[in-house]
Amino acid sequence: MKELPIHIQLDPKSDITLYEQIYEYIRNEIKAGNLLKNEKLPSARFLAEYLQVSRTTVDMAYEQLVLEGYVEARARRGYFVSAFEELYALGETANAKTYKPKQSERQPAYRYDFSPNAIDMRYFPYATWKKITKSILVDANSKMFSLGESQGDLQLRTTICRYLHGSRGVNCEPEQIIIGAGNDYLLLLLEKILGRHIHVAMENPTYVRAYKIFQSCAYPVSFVPMDESGMRVDCLRQTDAQAAYVMPSHQYPTGVSMPIGRRMELLKWASEEQERYLIEDDYDSEFRYKGKPLPSLQASDADGRVVYIGTFSKAIAPAIRISYMVLPYPLLERYRSRCSFYSSTVSRIDQTILNEFIRDGYFERYLNKMRKLYREKHDLILNELKPFEKDFRISGSNAGLHIILTDRKHREEEELARMAADVKVKIYRMQDFRMKNSESNALGAGSCDSGQTDEPAMLILGYGALTPEEIREGIALLKEVWN
Amino acid sequence: MKELPIHIQLDPKSDITLYEQIYEYIRNEIKAGNLLKNEKLPSARFLAEYLQVSRTTVDMAYEQLVLEGYVEARARRGYFVSAFEELYALGETANAKTYKPKQSERQPAYRYDFSPNAIDMRYFPYATWKKITKSILVDANSKMFSLGESQGDLQLRTTICRYLHGSRGVNCEPEQIIIGAGNDYLLLLLEKILGRHIHVAMENPTYVRAYKIFQSCAYPVSFVPMDESGMRVDCLRQTDAQAAYVMPSHQYPTGVSMPIGRRMELLKWASEEQERYLIEDDYDSEFRYKGKPLPSLQASDADGRVVYIGTFSKAIAPAIRISYMVLPYPLLERYRSRCSFYSSTVSRIDQTILNEFIRDGYFERYLNKMRKLYREKHDLILNELKPFEKDFRISGSNAGLHIILTDRKHREEEELARMAADVKVKIYRMQDFRMKNSESNALGAGSCDSGQTDEPAMLILGYGALTPEEIREGIALLKEVWN
Repeated sequence: MKELPIHIQLDPKSDITLYEQIYEYIRNEIKAGNLLKNEKLPSARFLAEYLQVSRTTVDMAYEQLVLEGYVEARARRGYFVSAFEELYALGETANAKTYKPKQSERQPAYRYDFSPNAIDMRYFPYATWKKITKSILVDANSKMFSLGESQGDLQLRTTICRYLHGSRGVNCEPEQIIIGAGNDYLLLLLEKILGRHIHVAMENPTYVRAYKIFQSCAYPVSFVPMDESGMRVDCLRQTDAQAAYVMPSHQYPTGVSMPIGRRMELLKWASEEQERYLIEDDYDSEFRYKGKPLPSLQASDADGRVVYIGTFSKAIAPAIRISYMVLPYPLLERYRSRCSFYSSTVSRIDQTILNEFIRDGYFERYLNKMRKLYREKHDLILNELKPFEKDFRISGSNAGLHIILTDRKHREEEELARMAADVKVKIYRMQDFRMKNSESNALGAGSCDSGQTDEPAMLILGYGALTPEEIREGIALLKEVWN
Repeated sequence: MKELPIHIQLDPKSDITLYEQIYEYIRNEIKAGNLLKNEKLPSARFLAEYLQVSRTTVDMAYEQLVLEGYVEARARRGYFVSAFEELYALGETANAKTYKPKQSERQPAYRYDFSPNAIDMRYFPYATWKKITKSILVDANSKMFSLGESQGDLQLRTTICRYLHGSRGVNCEPEQIIIGAGNDYLLLLLEKILGRHIHVAMENPTYVRAYKIFQSCAYPVSFVPMDESGMRVDCLRQTDAQAAYVMPSHQYPTGVSMPIGRRMELLKWASEEQERYLIEDDYDSEFRYKGKPLPSLQASDADGRVVYIGTFSKAIAPAIRISYMVLPYPLLERYRSRCSFYSSTVSRIDQTILNEFIRDGYFERYLNKMRKLYREKHDLILNELKPFEKDFRISGSNAGLHIILTDRKHREEEELARMAADVKVKIYRMQDFRMKNSESNALGAGSCDSGQTDEPAMLILGYGALTPEEIREGIALLKEVWN
């Protein structure tokens, strides 16, 4: 093996990241012919040790070289310089450009990211998942590789139905369930079911991605203010909305849980007109740390007005692109006549793995473990935040994976976020989730008018993906700068 | 083990299928308490032999019992009567109904189905797929379970890019590729990119599912007649279409391949206005049996007007819900500003498996094998159809997985299809793919007016999923009834 690494002179003070320096060095060596085709490169582990950089840094450099075709990874053998013919072919591609790594792919600037979306994957039962996968690819063979039903496999729908009934009080039949590759897809499908020009009401602040989807469906959207019980139905009544998108269990991002009284008001609103629906996004219902889990809004729906949407991305893993939508019967009929030809977006293999994962009790066990783990983090962050109580009101606790700090000292969100960023801590600003009604959808004057400029600063701290040490250290840094 | 099977009295002449009889017997025994909870049922193999029915019949009965919760399947141990608590919980479900198997789930009435959609999965390298899956779940672990880029993983996009360049002459960069869970999803996404009220032109006859998707997007659609070179551009010019959806390599269902002259006409049409696009669906481009594969239409597109769509459902397996769309740069920009927040609909695990399957040469090898296999079936069916040549013109050959018979004797498609059905052979009628323009989208009079009533009967025979014996036997039966 050529003593390649000896010649790389890394400059840790350069504007160019370390991995780019490594990548560029090797690329230039290949281009110059100093590294010959089919020559083996040092292993990533060896090179990392030799250069005293992290393994990730070398991995990123190698990955980039593979992507660009200079280097190829051979299974269980390592990295090799690509053969020249292939390099030539690569250069030949009509409008070829060199792939430039985006800013976001560079080293992150934050040490502690209190993201409200991130989850902890350290305890995921990879071995079990693998075992199930293995058993399915053996037993079921070719059937698994055929196209399944467009609503999703009946077995999985039956399993989800039972799970939802048991854990969320959802009343449904397997035939009412549509399985799809993620909530975004299900909302697109819902557009085809509900039809065009549907005026949607959303809580304010709200889940911005759902808003963007409604926007890309060209739906008019009204943002309705919330109080401590959730969406204000008196304000909702000032809109022309035909559908309201709500997160009653643990609103995102405010963390508000909607009490039964407000739920009944919402259901009443929906029942007052023929074509009114509630879209319930129950995105993190699995994680509740105090008291009995709140049942879903759908559980109280006597009139077939609630479309219930849930996902396994949060409770299992973001890569598991399996979400489900429970349609009330009138909409199910419309789905059947308008949309049942859309083929399923989830492979049968994935559906079968998930089905066995739930059916055989692994999901329940994993949820219990994660609930315990998240509860510990939840209790820890609340404890660490005790000294903040004179400057901030703390809310949104007891459920989900994030909490809310409301400033009592008339500071600005920007200011508080910038101070946190100075010590490399990322926290999230409520203003990024607050929406403004367009002129045409403005709510009548008075208390429904969303003049939010006088709202106190509110900060969102997610703790799902952080370790207890990271939570402690991150909060300690915030204490230094905010107090 | 209780001697259960002794008591079932199957009635082969009953209207109730055998599997339903078995299912009902066992269900009633469980309800009556004659089969106790946790009691093991005889193995499907044993019961099938005992009752002298097919293994599938018993499997269907057991599957139904599992679905309804009466019986549970325990891995590697067999089928057991469910515990009573669970049965009770099942009965409790608010608006529970018993699942009724649909007509389509019953035994098929046809012995030979010449479906143009079905593919042969007998030679799929399951072991390789499993091996790759196993190696990924080991090596990459948690990274695989995180949410990937919304366009799809860069590695897979790079691999697809190279594959498309090499095999289809497609000119593109990885950044132009959007990976999605099936063509239907990609067409939904394309709607968000192109915008609303896009008037689409389609070949006539055409791929009905794509039409239904445009319809559910509320796109006005014009159907443009074809000649032996494909869509007639003179007729296309009579429409207000801003986009034309075409299948130039091997049109579905006519089997027509579009020659370069017509392609240039189409590209010229697209270039004449700012916002005109061609949507190229290259659904079965992998299978061509004579001459060099035709390059894609996208390969000739100098002006950034072609949206290229392809899928792995046909070349690998229908369950592999991975399709790709290559966007020209103007549309890519629009995707980025309007749609890049949509999360990917394909799990990273699946993307990684596919990437390695292609990158390590398995896909190429599998394609070569299948091309050979399909060519043999193609040659066989043409040979078997020789005696039909005086009554039918045979076309659409040399590519894809189906051929077309055009009647020379002024018979009706219904009549020919009914005669085939009488001998339990399913063939497909061209009229089911022919569309009629609405009044408002009618093409000007003359030869573009789709007065298709005088078209001769055309029949579609797919051979992808049939064995050589089945092809021989099916064609022999057709010979008996059609001649």
